[in-house]
Amino acid sequence: MPLEIERKFLLEGEAVPSAVATEPIEQGYIAVTGDGTEVRLRRIAGNCFLTVKRGKGGFSRIEVELSVTDSEFEELWPATAGARLVKTRHSVRLDDVLAYVDVYEQNLSGLRTVEVEFPSEELARAFTPPDWFGPEITGSDRYKNRRLAVEGLSATAV
Amino acid sequence: MPLEIERKFLLEGEAVPSAVATEPIEQGYIAVTGDGTEVRLRRIAGNCFLTVKRGKGGFSRIEVELSVTDSEFEELWPATAGARLVKTRHSVRLDDVLAYVDVYEQNLSGLRTVEVEFPSEELARAFTPPDWFGPEITGSDRYKNRRLAVEGLSATAV
Repeated sequence: MPLEIERKFLLEGEAVPSAVATEPIEQGYIAVTGDGTEVRLRRIAGNCFLTVKRGKGGFSRIEVELSVTDSEFEELWPATAGARLVKTRHSVRLDDVLAYVDVYEQNLSGLRTVEVEFPSEELARAFTPPDWFGPEITGSDRYKNRRLAVEGLSATAV
Repeated sequence: MPLEIERKFLLEGEAVPSAVATEPIEQGYIAVTGDGTEVRLRRIAGNCFLTVKRGKGGFSRIEVELSVTDSEFEELWPATAGARLVKTRHSVRLDDVLAYVDVYEQNLSGLRTVEVEFPSEELARAFTPPDWFGPEITGSDRYKNRRLAVEGLSATAV
């Protein structure tokens, strides 16, 4: 699986353009370890995945995504207790990329972020955020989903 | 998946009866967390599985086994670096149960254990170990595979 190169921003009061697709996402973390390993369970638009990530970057980075059935998802979901989040993803077309607007729900209600993925670091650097994007939070540990899932919005209050 | 009820013993110098099946097992741990969650990758006799275990017993115990392909196994295997073990399992028929004799290899060479699984606690209690079984280690944390995989035989030296 290729390395993800992405930039992430908060959304504040600005209106968001219409989405080309809207999908519910439920995700939870089965394990998050001190050495940077993450085992994530996700259902997006009815498709279920178990994803293993390890390492922070470079050659040692591992990311493997397994498709799981709906019943396997249901069996595994209890193992994510205490480390879950629910959001709705709106895909918005910019010039030649898609922006993923995530509207968080439940205990994370009020938080909205937008992510853009790029095929190269050059394109990531060259990207000019549209006016409706808020402050950039690329690389901010505070807004990582696995941290939000465990700590909730309190993680962002500091 | 039903709860495993098993008893486990060390093997010392005694001869072991002939096996009805012999299978290589490679296994590694993708994640082991402080709250008792374990994500294990295993290849046994050419079949590959990812197993998620959580909880120590009772109603909250979770154990889910997913079949994975050989190529998914190969992709995931690097995520087990530093937490692996290799052993050969010899299945030996006792009266009406199978005993699994595990002969550990590589850095765990010299360690041999035997496990018997039972359909009920009554049958587990009623079981009389044959003469070739050594000291019982049921429930001993020191001989748990996830600990042996990470700490090696030093874990058993205490």
